[in-house]
Amino acid sequence: MNQTPKYEHIPRATIQRLATYLQVLEAMDKDGVQVISSEPLSRACDVNASQVRKDLAYFGEFGVRGVGYYVSYLLEVIKACLNANREWRAALVGVGNMGRALLNYQEFRRHGFTIVGAFDCDPFKIGEKIYGLEVFCTKTLVEKVPELGIEIGIITVPPERAQRAATQLVDAGIKGILNYSAARISVPDHVFVEYVNFFHQIYSLTFNISTKQR
Amino acid sequence: MNQTPKYEHIPRATIQRLATYLQVLEAMDKDGVQVISSEPLSRACDVNASQVRKDLAYFGEFGVRGVGYYVSYLLEVIKACLNANREWRAALVGVGNMGRALLNYQEFRRHGFTIVGAFDCDPFKIGEKIYGLEVFCTKTLVEKVPELGIEIGIITVPPERAQRAATQLVDAGIKGILNYSAARISVPDHVFVEYVNFFHQIYSLTFNISTKQR
Repeated sequence: MNQTPKYEHIPRATIQRLATYLQVLEAMDKDGVQVISSEPLSRACDVNASQVRKDLAYFGEFGVRGVGYYVSYLLEVIKACLNANREWRAALVGVGNMGRALLNYQEFRRHGFTIVGAFDCDPFKIGEKIYGLEVFCTKTLVEKVPELGIEIGIITVPPERAQRAATQLVDAGIKGILNYSAARISVPDHVFVEYVNFFHQIYSLTFNISTKQR
Repeated sequence: MNQTPKYEHIPRATIQRLATYLQVLEAMDKDGVQVISSEPLSRACDVNASQVRKDLAYFGEFGVRGVGYYVSYLLEVIKACLNANREWRAALVGVGNMGRALLNYQEFRRHGFTIVGAFDCDPFKIGEKIYGLEVFCTKTLVEKVPELGIEIGIITVPPERAQRAATQLVDAGIKGILNYSAARISVPDHVFVEYVNFFHQIYSLTFNISTKQR
């Protein structure tokens, strides 16, 4: 809160593009690239260059005219803005196929997004160990969330159980929910929800393939 | 191509919201709702009502003043626009955890998005049967894609193998790629790519939790 008040008004679409810039910049940093100008960055991100410059301008005038941006500094500043430079502890509810895939998703851990608790309401799954995590009953969320310092809940249950999972997470004191289930959920105003809906991208594809000729 | 020329200029952000509207409208339709006005639709979708009206205006003036939209008709029109009213056949490359989760993802099949081929380059996985699908060597994509009428490729390989998978899919004649790997890929101009990057939503959450007080 105290670190990032000036970023308050960054629009949602910019935040999403920042995630893409981070991905590209991290790959460049790994490859030893030290300085980048907006054109190659924009090409790699599939965003036009003026948009890139506009997005990065939220962070002040730290590009160097005629040179570009310092990759590692840019990484640092964007991560600070997104509060992605610290660990975030998450609880996953619903240990089905998608849940298991996320429990073992290396990119989460690599970016400080750590799933520290796995929960399910199926008695056959409770007690099972998955990638080193014991599966707990969802009823224990209310104790485990504060105990494990969990701030974010991940919902990977079938659609018809999504609202119940959301309510249990909210009651346990979660601050934000990442919802992978194909159902909308209702939560109180102080809880943030983000939907992962694969059809956003699928319909963009089917729309583009059908409508646009290249 | 012949069905939807007038939709050519619908912006990308609208297309993504249409996916959300479809999800909500399908749930309403299932619950027996016949007519809906823009306010409850906007609340359920977490999009403001004037945006909903603006988005739906691309489809002509089919709302009924003082009444709202007919749910089943709206569903039909949006699906036609997105070309989501027919089957799309997909090949999945990379039978790891995420690949397996998607092979068994019921929402895909329920929406006519059918994965008809699973591919991997690991000799231990080739020949294995996963949810009824035999895993083929990625080298066979070039024969299987036309043989199985596949138009879309799904990439679920580790980041360092994403470009190779993309090139193999392109060489096999794919029209669009849904990329779940945490790597950018290069493809020729006639191929459409959509990235599924979970950090878009995660960073929105961490940003909102840290920056906004509710």
